[in-house]
Amino acid sequence: MIKRLLLLLLVGIFTQHSFSQHQLSKTLDLMPWPKEISENSEKFLITVDFTIQINYGNETKVTHAATKFLRRLSNRTGVFFKNGFPSKNNKISSLQISFSNVVAPILGVDESYTLDVKNKQILLNATTDIGAIRGLETLLQLVKNRKHTTYFAGVSITDAPRFLWRGLMIDVARHFMPVEVIKRNLDAMAAVKMNVFHWHLTDDQGFRVESKVYPKLHQLGSDGLYYTQAQIKDVVKYATRLGIRVIPEFDVPGHASAILAAYPALGSKEGYEYSIERNAGVFDPTLDPTNDETYVFLKNLFTEIAPLFPDEYFHIGGDENEGKHWSESKEITAFKKKHHLKTNHDLQTYFNIKLEKILLKLNKKLMGWDEIMTPTMPTTAVIHSWRGTHEGLKESTLIEAAKKGYQSVLSNGYYIDRMLSVKHHYGVDPIGDAVLTKQERARILGGETTMWSELVTPLTVDSRIWPRTAAIAERYWSQKSVTDVDNMFKRLNVVSFQLEELGLTHLRNKNVILRNITQNQNTNSLTILSEISEPLKIYSRNSGGTEYQTYSPFVLFADACTADAVDAFYFAKVVDRHLKNPTEKTQKKLMYFFQKWIKGYSQFQKLKSNPKLEKLRPLYSNLNAVSELFYKALKEKSRLNDSAVNSAIHELRKPIEDVAVVLINSLTKLKNTFIKKY
Amino acid sequence: MIKRLLLLLLVGIFTQHSFSQHQLSKTLDLMPWPKEISENSEKFLITVDFTIQINYGNETKVTHAATKFLRRLSNRTGVFFKNGFPSKNNKISSLQISFSNVVAPILGVDESYTLDVKNKQILLNATTDIGAIRGLETLLQLVKNRKHTTYFAGVSITDAPRFLWRGLMIDVARHFMPVEVIKRNLDAMAAVKMNVFHWHLTDDQGFRVESKVYPKLHQLGSDGLYYTQAQIKDVVKYATRLGIRVIPEFDVPGHASAILAAYPALGSKEGYEYSIERNAGVFDPTLDPTNDETYVFLKNLFTEIAPLFPDEYFHIGGDENEGKHWSESKEITAFKKKHHLKTNHDLQTYFNIKLEKILLKLNKKLMGWDEIMTPTMPTTAVIHSWRGTHEGLKESTLIEAAKKGYQSVLSNGYYIDRMLSVKHHYGVDPIGDAVLTKQERARILGGETTMWSELVTPLTVDSRIWPRTAAIAERYWSQKSVTDVDNMFKRLNVVSFQLEELGLTHLRNKNVILRNITQNQNTNSLTILSEISEPLKIYSRNSGGTEYQTYSPFVLFADACTADAVDAFYFAKVVDRHLKNPTEKTQKKLMYFFQKWIKGYSQFQKLKSNPKLEKLRPLYSNLNAVSELFYKALKEKSRLNDSAVNSAIHELRKPIEDVAVVLINSLTKLKNTFIKKY
Repeated sequence: MIKRLLLLLLVGIFTQHSFSQHQLSKTLDLMPWPKEISENSEKFLITVDFTIQINYGNETKVTHAATKFLRRLSNRTGVFFKNGFPSKNNKISSLQISFSNVVAPILGVDESYTLDVKNKQILLNATTDIGAIRGLETLLQLVKNRKHTTYFAGVSITDAPRFLWRGLMIDVARHFMPVEVIKRNLDAMAAVKMNVFHWHLTDDQGFRVESKVYPKLHQLGSDGLYYTQAQIKDVVKYATRLGIRVIPEFDVPGHASAILAAYPALGSKEGYEYSIERNAGVFDPTLDPTNDETYVFLKNLFTEIAPLFPDEYFHIGGDENEGKHWSESKEITAFKKKHHLKTNHDLQTYFNIKLEKILLKLNKKLMGWDEIMTPTMPTTAVIHSWRGTHEGLKESTLIEAAKKGYQSVLSNGYYIDRMLSVKHHYGVDPIGDAVLTKQERARILGGETTMWSELVTPLTVDSRIWPRTAAIAERYWSQKSVTDVDNMFKRLNVVSFQLEELGLTHLRNKNVILRNITQNQNTNSLTILSEISEPLKIYSRNSGGTEYQTYSPFVLFADACTADAVDAFYFAKVVDRHLKNPTEKTQKKLMYFFQKWIKGYSQFQKLKSNPKLEKLRPLYSNLNAVSELFYKALKEKSRLNDSAVNSAIHELRKPIEDVAVVLINSLTKLKNTFIKKY
Repeated sequence: MIKRLLLLLLVGIFTQHSFSQHQLSKTLDLMPWPKEISENSEKFLITVDFTIQINYGNETKVTHAATKFLRRLSNRTGVFFKNGFPSKNNKISSLQISFSNVVAPILGVDESYTLDVKNKQILLNATTDIGAIRGLETLLQLVKNRKHTTYFAGVSITDAPRFLWRGLMIDVARHFMPVEVIKRNLDAMAAVKMNVFHWHLTDDQGFRVESKVYPKLHQLGSDGLYYTQAQIKDVVKYATRLGIRVIPEFDVPGHASAILAAYPALGSKEGYEYSIERNAGVFDPTLDPTNDETYVFLKNLFTEIAPLFPDEYFHIGGDENEGKHWSESKEITAFKKKHHLKTNHDLQTYFNIKLEKILLKLNKKLMGWDEIMTPTMPTTAVIHSWRGTHEGLKESTLIEAAKKGYQSVLSNGYYIDRMLSVKHHYGVDPIGDAVLTKQERARILGGETTMWSELVTPLTVDSRIWPRTAAIAERYWSQKSVTDVDNMFKRLNVVSFQLEELGLTHLRNKNVILRNITQNQNTNSLTILSEISEPLKIYSRNSGGTEYQTYSPFVLFADACTADAVDAFYFAKVVDRHLKNPTEKTQKKLMYFFQKWIKGYSQFQKLKSNPKLEKLRPLYSNLNAVSELFYKALKEKSRLNDSAVNSAIHELRKPIEDVAVVLINSLTKLKNTFIKKY
């Protein structure tokens, strides 16, 4: 009995500290959080002698990733490695990478790996090369430092993704995104273990692919802003090396203004003057599904384009077609009658089924937005759920699709262009409480974050995607139970910084915009304002779609602000702490914020003015008015003038220049206690 | 008589204020400064109704430039234009652009233009489309603003360049520069009216071009970092649209390690293990000029590559070949004897002349660094002067070449990788005091700024090229008499900011490096230190070429610092003013600086440390020690402790982490007066 106790005790001593799924480490900043992890007290010191060995002969993905790993590690630590490249035959290397198979990134590929960091060596093992590069990203997140040393934290990790499809969609139609924008976002995706890049290549505002068969498409449909086929191949190669699949989307039969600007004969309304759309919204130009030439065109186009994309899936859009031009056409109406197609939706299904057959011959599976899910649509199609629980349905289209036998991917809840807090998106679980059979569960492939680009340009796109998408990527990869929001915010702050190191511009470009607004004066006052301001959310920034054209300026204050204003976040925390337990310390912290805003306004007032600054003056002035009231009351421990504060908060609540100061809730809470208290 | 006086008076009243070449405007920030300019009091207001008309049918350069002009203008002013594109038939447009010829950018093309800005209309006239796009850049520099309006300042300009060849060379061999780096630098070149991009494509550290004829070149000679032929065509097209010629350089017979890593049989030393070079310096691997295969190889390679570059000139390098392997080879020594070639230099001329013939058949003129200028070299070659007055010669190789009948281009004095102040480069005139005949003068084509990239990466290259190159561009374009340094600095500050607006990263990337050093902590203290610190100059940073390898980290503090530390510049001015006429105001300004540095150090001390910060601590601590001594003495109007200050300045003088605090001269001057005075 005592022996057994002793044994238990010893086991207890020697057992490494292991986290349950709920228990996140306080020291480690991994994102996405791995499936199983145990920390140990070992440390692998990073010195000039650091080397990598790859235990596999002829492959490129891991060699490339390991070479980049060395550059990134050297840059982060400042250590000058003697050897700048991984080796193939150096058994005493610091990091040993082993895997059995070199694979293409296809749906369902094995991405698991194990990682062991000890004092003397690091072992990374995987089944596939893609698993190995996922593990390399984890290792880079384990770098820690003391005063004079940097090291990898000792851990033992066994990791694998929860969902097979972890996607990011980028819309390059509303605003064109040059190749380097796509490439750096692919790098970032790989850094947080995402594996599907959905390329929204066509829409009313532009057709972004060079076509040799139908050259007018890029000549007349893109304003000269398109990818050559060589560039597309280059991007696909780049993605493939990162273990990322590329799914192209050619949005039809709606969203077709750019196509019809080039080939108006394929349109549903005769005599209509088709042109590239400059506004945002849902528009009428639609391919004519009753015209045989439409299918000849699509067959030829897809036959040309499909081989550029090795992936099995091909996205045909299929969303937001209201069929206005169809209803207006006598011929199309007659066609519907003849073919017993009651609604425009039925007509679109007719169109989709013809498309599915074209794609099948090209060995492609059709994927489309959830409107394509109609009773006659074959279950080989993949349903991309964007509307969630639309039209009063209880279940999301995602769950509905899985139950009906379709594979499905969720984007509802991951529309980052709505400019909601990362907290919101992090809280959306693809499956949620749905009760599913094993088969149904297997059909839910995963999720996709969608970056629609009506209000987004190459300058700002990174700051709209990142860092929020890193937290969403955790939702796709990590176990369902990983939901601690505070811990997520802590880790996201580190990951965000590491994404900048990787080349993302979400942090650095903010000052570019602020300098533009001040016209090369000190930007400090605008930085302060931006840290409590957020762009208007849920499409209220461009209500109606006509305030901004595709060629409007997007270097405005709203473009410098992000969805999670950092000082507003911390201020809310201080207010909560103060309300719970007011101390000298919380009092001082509150005063610190108000003083910061007062000082910011004073700096702002000293700037040489210009029209852009003038437009912001009321916003800052309102902030200053509120701040002075609170600051005085806090400092003097005096009463707040109720009506003065109410009126000042009322003013501050008003959005100005498409931006809202997001302190209102915190201020209202604080004010109410204040008035009660003093 | 009175009538005549009255007439003179009236003429005087109505004559616009016209600048002589020496007289630069205080309000306008044009760079390069135009040949002739007169300001008037008119203003063209920039409103939503602004439009552009191009009075020419079918062309692309101006249409493209004008479209970009609208985006840039909209972004800078924040004005939402109703019309986002230039028109071809709108006679009432705000800006009327007229020109007679659409031309390719070749040597000697007409780049002149006239620009008239009036209250109601702007007229831009040029002979060629390239002249028109030069004028558009000038117009963008005329944007001014008041509190509620932005406008183009009224002027009448007649402009044309002083030199035909206004180049920037970028070395993409030592560190590869992706396509977007090249493109944004081309944009910047066009913004300051440069017209030659010299692409240094090969060197010991890499062969950066895809070759289909000799694929091992990019496969084994580039670490996978090379341009595809499609990318090269894309860059050339991009440059051409900006009116910029592209001159490729294939450096032979020296600087050939990367070529020989792929094709060792072409090397001069049998059995030598050729490999891509990782260090900086001059190396031995050299093509064998006695081997017929060498010429077959070069002929085939150039026949493949030359058509990618439409320009008439082709740069073959030809520099820094010490011929060590030639002297070591019995066969090569015998060959020299047989062909009466006394020196290795003679042998290289033999090689160059064979190359010239190969290029002639490809309709290319040979250009090479000044070593190629030997008595037997035909004067059809263009001499690229990099050594200036070498080996005790009185004349620079530029002038020497012109006198000998060669066309020549100056780079000596424009080596921006030496990290000298812009003031230095601005002061180098290509012709200087040389007395030349008209013919000789005509042979001096212009100058080229050279960005060698041993210590430069895509992250930092913009901050090494810009803004200094804008001032050098003025040297190439503007009249010789435009030399006012203070005025140049004033305008450069504005142009630098406008280059950021255009997409250059020289300003924004600084904080990326500082954040890396602090590991995501506040960078303010490092910003303060960086504003008085400069990287070591004239190659002392990487003395011997072995401290840094091509894969070393270049996100160090030295990489965040630039050649013209801004606070050091202003501090020196304040010191001079104070020494000349000490007032309360100058006293206060001095104290402001010392306090800033003391405060910076105090912030620095509060950062959570890491090895990179630790390395900077002595530098900051030395600055703090000096600052405290001066601050105390200034504040208390007391004596400086002579020995304490001397010893503190002595410490501060020491470079640390490849960086020097550049206050020493100012501090020493200040100290000496101080000691005298109190």
